[in-house]
Amino acid sequence: MRLYIGLVHYPVYNKNRETIASAITNFDLHDLSRLSRTYGAKRLFIITPLKSQHTLAERISTHWTSGYGASYNVHRKEALEIVSVVETLEEAIDSVVEAEKERPLLISTDASKQDDRTIDYLHAREILDSERTVFLIFGTAWGLHEDVLMMSDFILDPVEGRTDYNHLSVRTAAGIILDRLAGRYK
Amino acid sequence: MRLYIGLVHYPVYNKNRETIASAITNFDLHDLSRLSRTYGAKRLFIITPLKSQHTLAERISTHWTSGYGASYNVHRKEALEIVSVVETLEEAIDSVVEAEKERPLLISTDASKQDDRTIDYLHAREILDSERTVFLIFGTAWGLHEDVLMMSDFILDPVEGRTDYNHLSVRTAAGIILDRLAGRYK
Repeated sequence: MRLYIGLVHYPVYNKNRETIASAITNFDLHDLSRLSRTYGAKRLFIITPLKSQHTLAERISTHWTSGYGASYNVHRKEALEIVSVVETLEEAIDSVVEAEKERPLLISTDASKQDDRTIDYLHAREILDSERTVFLIFGTAWGLHEDVLMMSDFILDPVEGRTDYNHLSVRTAAGIILDRLAGRYK
Repeated sequence: MRLYIGLVHYPVYNKNRETIASAITNFDLHDLSRLSRTYGAKRLFIITPLKSQHTLAERISTHWTSGYGASYNVHRKEALEIVSVVETLEEAIDSVVEAEKERPLLISTDASKQDDRTIDYLHAREILDSERTVFLIFGTAWGLHEDVLMMSDFILDPVEGRTDYNHLSVRTAAGIILDRLAGRYK
């Protein structure tokens, strides 16, 4: 499986559908890196153009990968080692191309069902199983900007539970999505 | 589906396998209440004997259910309305018995595969589908105390990904588990 994960902090929407750069959330970094490691993703890109946010993400990461935290909790070290903080989605994609020698298929996620270029879990899973390189993109705040959806090859069906309430955190949604795409259980 | 969720802060283990009462995490409250609401669980019990923690949980909850947050973000209000903060697991179980007029089947979760009374996802899903009342129990910190495992009817198989790394946050693991037990998708 050649799976890469991206967590986009810009461009995303705020509550009023204005384009913003969201702040990095400490819990996102820990939860998503542990998730990515558990399901065998090759790299987790944290995408934000804000310099101050790079400093923050690197401070968290360094604490757990080479600071006091590395000996205190080796599992966090192992997880955070697969994180790369980059300025743009394009930079993340370039990095995947360099590693895999092919352009990854871009699959974006959204909490709403789209009209165009949708893909369901069964088909996305088949693509992953075929060893095609896949870049799975998650948005923060109120979701990925339409520019990101427009440049994607596919937009994954939203996670729906058993009710019409559908407001999962990106941490929870990412867990469910990775399990649907790569999980194995009885 | 008659599903109840419990998040236990006591008794759980710390890193050195000592019995502790862990602190409530703001993100657990939000992520798990949104998850519980999405998958149609009837109530989410936050279980802690610490009075100071009750005050904290109630302050968070009140902010979003009747304070400024209730009008700012109605989705958080809807989610947090299904949270009950109780002192003990027994108190939570009594509350379920009162609502459902039957003792719930207790299914505990653990990151390690157990020897005894294990249940896989297929069978746990069948029980839920049969309309039997189920109380699904999650631990915080380094996991549920063995006293809780001992009093449970079943212990659910751990979530395993694609690697031997297996250190998901309770927020992520709960999402994956609820989707495996109650999710519907193509």
